[in-house]
Amino acid sequence: MTDTDVLVPWPQLDRRHGPWPDGVRVHVWDGVTPASELPQDVLDAVEFWVMPYAVPDADRLLPRLPRLRAVQSLSAGVEKLQPQLAEGVTLHNGRGLHDASTAEHALGLILAAQRELPRWAADQVAGRWEPHFTRSLADSRVAIVGYGSIGSALETRLLACEAEVVRVARRARPDEGVHAIADLPELLPGLDIVVLVLPENPATVGLFGPKEMAALPDGALVVNVGRGRTLDTEALLAETVTGRLRAALDVTDPEPLPADHALRHAPGVLITPHVAGGSAAFRPRAERLIVEQVRRWAAEEELLNLFPRP
Amino acid sequence: MTDTDVLVPWPQLDRRHGPWPDGVRVHVWDGVTPASELPQDVLDAVEFWVMPYAVPDADRLLPRLPRLRAVQSLSAGVEKLQPQLAEGVTLHNGRGLHDASTAEHALGLILAAQRELPRWAADQVAGRWEPHFTRSLADSRVAIVGYGSIGSALETRLLACEAEVVRVARRARPDEGVHAIADLPELLPGLDIVVLVLPENPATVGLFGPKEMAALPDGALVVNVGRGRTLDTEALLAETVTGRLRAALDVTDPEPLPADHALRHAPGVLITPHVAGGSAAFRPRAERLIVEQVRRWAAEEELLNLFPRP
Ligand SMILES: NC(=O)c1ccc[n+]([C@@H]2O[C@H](COP(=O)([O-])OP(=O)(O)OC[C@H]3O[C@@H](n4cnc5c(N)ncnc54)[C@H](OP(=O)(O)O)[C@@H]3O)[C@@H](O)[C@H]2O)c1
Ligand SMILES: NC(=O)c1ccc[n+]([C@@H]2O[C@H](COP(=O)([O-])OP(=O)(O)OC[C@H]3O[C@@H](n4cnc5c(N)ncnc54)[C@H](OP(=O)(O)O)[C@@H]3O)[C@@H](O)[C@H]2O)c1
Repeated sequence: MTDTDVLVPWPQLDRRHGPWPDGVRVHVWDGVTPASELPQDVLDAVEFWVMPYAVPDADRLLPRLPRLRAVQSLSAGVEKLQPQLAEGVTLHNGRGLHDASTAEHALGLILAAQRELPRWAADQVAGRWEPHFTRSLADSRVAIVGYGSIGSALETRLLACEAEVVRVARRARPDEGVHAIADLPELLPGLDIVVLVLPENPATVGLFGPKEMAALPDGALVVNVGRGRTLDTEALLAETVTGRLRAALDVTDPEPLPADHALRHAPGVLITPHVAGGSAAFRPRAERLIVEQVRRWAAEEELLNLFPRP
Repeated sequence: MTDTDVLVPWPQLDRRHGPWPDGVRVHVWDGVTPASELPQDVLDAVEFWVMPYAVPDADRLLPRLPRLRAVQSLSAGVEKLQPQLAEGVTLHNGRGLHDASTAEHALGLILAAQRELPRWAADQVAGRWEPHFTRSLADSRVAIVGYGSIGSALETRLLACEAEVVRVARRARPDEGVHAIADLPELLPGLDIVVLVLPENPATVGLFGPKEMAALPDGALVVNVGRGRTLDTEALLAETVTGRLRAALDVTDPEPLPADHALRHAPGVLITPHVAGGSAAFRPRAERLIVEQVRRWAAEEELLNLFPRP
């Protein structure tokens, strides 16, 4: 192919991942230094842009890239970016980049709850040493509600821990053993743990409410690492203050959870501040995706993770 | 075979696991009801005894079982039981029964440390919501020092979390990629996490001391789920109060750890009170072992987990 200009967010990727393909001129913009410092001839030439991660106003560069043909975001949720792209510009998202990080955080929350780590940590500083038997993850029956990219990464980890996994998605996929969300009511009474990994959309807001919680057995653990609004916070509060259910949440409704929110003090509730996706596991996976996409771009192969036009 | 009498610690195992083999008369003693309540003709007849778990003086029954030919303990450590057995009585231990429980607790400790769960739990009750990037388990290089039964169960879980595992045992087993403990000094500088899963014996006491800790990179995590005395507590305290190393310990030296011990308040140190093996994962595995051993006993096959005479 003829030469092409690409803009990436991190310098020296070729040092860690091997040389860039022939014919590719790679420029760097981290999203933090003012865009005005980017040379005009670079802006005029960029055909493929990998946007900097978690830079809210990075999209302001879009109108200044006249030759743009493809955009790679490092986020999974690109709904707001889509409408800003000119006809003919393809959008590629960060699907999969947060799987390892989010799945391992979910696993950490589950293990902390089953093995009572918050209690032991409190005993540690209080000077106590009072061992007792705890629940385990092994042999537990865990439903993954939202069996998608993160859900399947979580399943791998749960199976390694000898748990039993129940897969739930929008529609049943019998060949893959995936249950439809419509079957949830029948599944709930048999679960020890339910993990929500749902995106936020009109069908998922409030999806896990008082009825679903009431159908869970006593002592069951409710985990949410998807989006806060998919879970009914008031219903969960009611079921946890009595000690009937337990919970481990990385996302809440609202977010941030107010400093004086009662859920912070409900027994058996563990809350982390939306940090499941944000760990050291992200960067190497993002770098590998960028390098692969640039290789494909240079070879005129289809880019991965195409985000469909509505 | 002719009929045989066996004594097991839990009732109704046949209800959950299917009928006992023909010719086996199964009696139950839980170790809690006085042994004097066991009928004399049962005591006189028992040939295979599965001892009740964690009943310190259960071995007092041994002299009252004249026809005994095999003993199954549900503990891994049976060193003190061995000398009490008459010539010709074989001893079988609980090797493997605690693997799932101990490995998942170790994994929970590691994830809690990498993903900063104790910090988030403190923020939760303090009313804070201050997310930041954390370390991950994915991509971390983890040495398992004591790559035995529990170690290999831990490895399965770590690999599912996309960590890299370095196996260390007494002697090198190059065909299995196992390093000798003598190679530890060279391995330490390249590790993110080191997990001790060592038994206590003259060679392991103090095995992980100031030199080993000094060879670890800044910020490394030291985990101990084996025995407390294999780690030098004073050295670890010195390396953690400065914040240079982090630690997650299920076993300590001494045990219980005194209420006013400084390690309880060292930054980046998480302590649980020797509960790794004690979870709901134990019972079903113990039951399955008992049922299999009774099947083998009835079929005159070799029993599993023979503990060798010294
Ligand atoms: N806590 C964090 O830091 C963090 C990090 C990353 C992502 N997330 C959240 O996690 C969500 C899932 O991410 P992902 O990458 O796994 O997405 P994904 O691969 O698109 O999977 C989403 C899953 O949700 C299911 N789903 C969607 N709508 C549903 C409905 N109405 N009822 C039942 N199931 C429904 C989908 O079912 P089908 O398979 O039938 O379509 C799919 O299985 C993201 O949308 C994001 O909000 C959170
Ligand atoms: N925290 C808890 O609740 C809990 C629960 C259960 C067990 N434990 C502890 O965990 C220990 C390990 O259990 P396991 O079932 O995994 O035992 P295992 O299968 O016998 O494995 C022990 C491992 O330690 C290695 N080892 C022994 N002496 C060593 C030495 N001097 N230097 C280096 N490596 C040495 C062995 O090496 P080789 O393979 O070369 O022989 C083996 O790999 C038990 O002894 C027990 O003390 C703790």
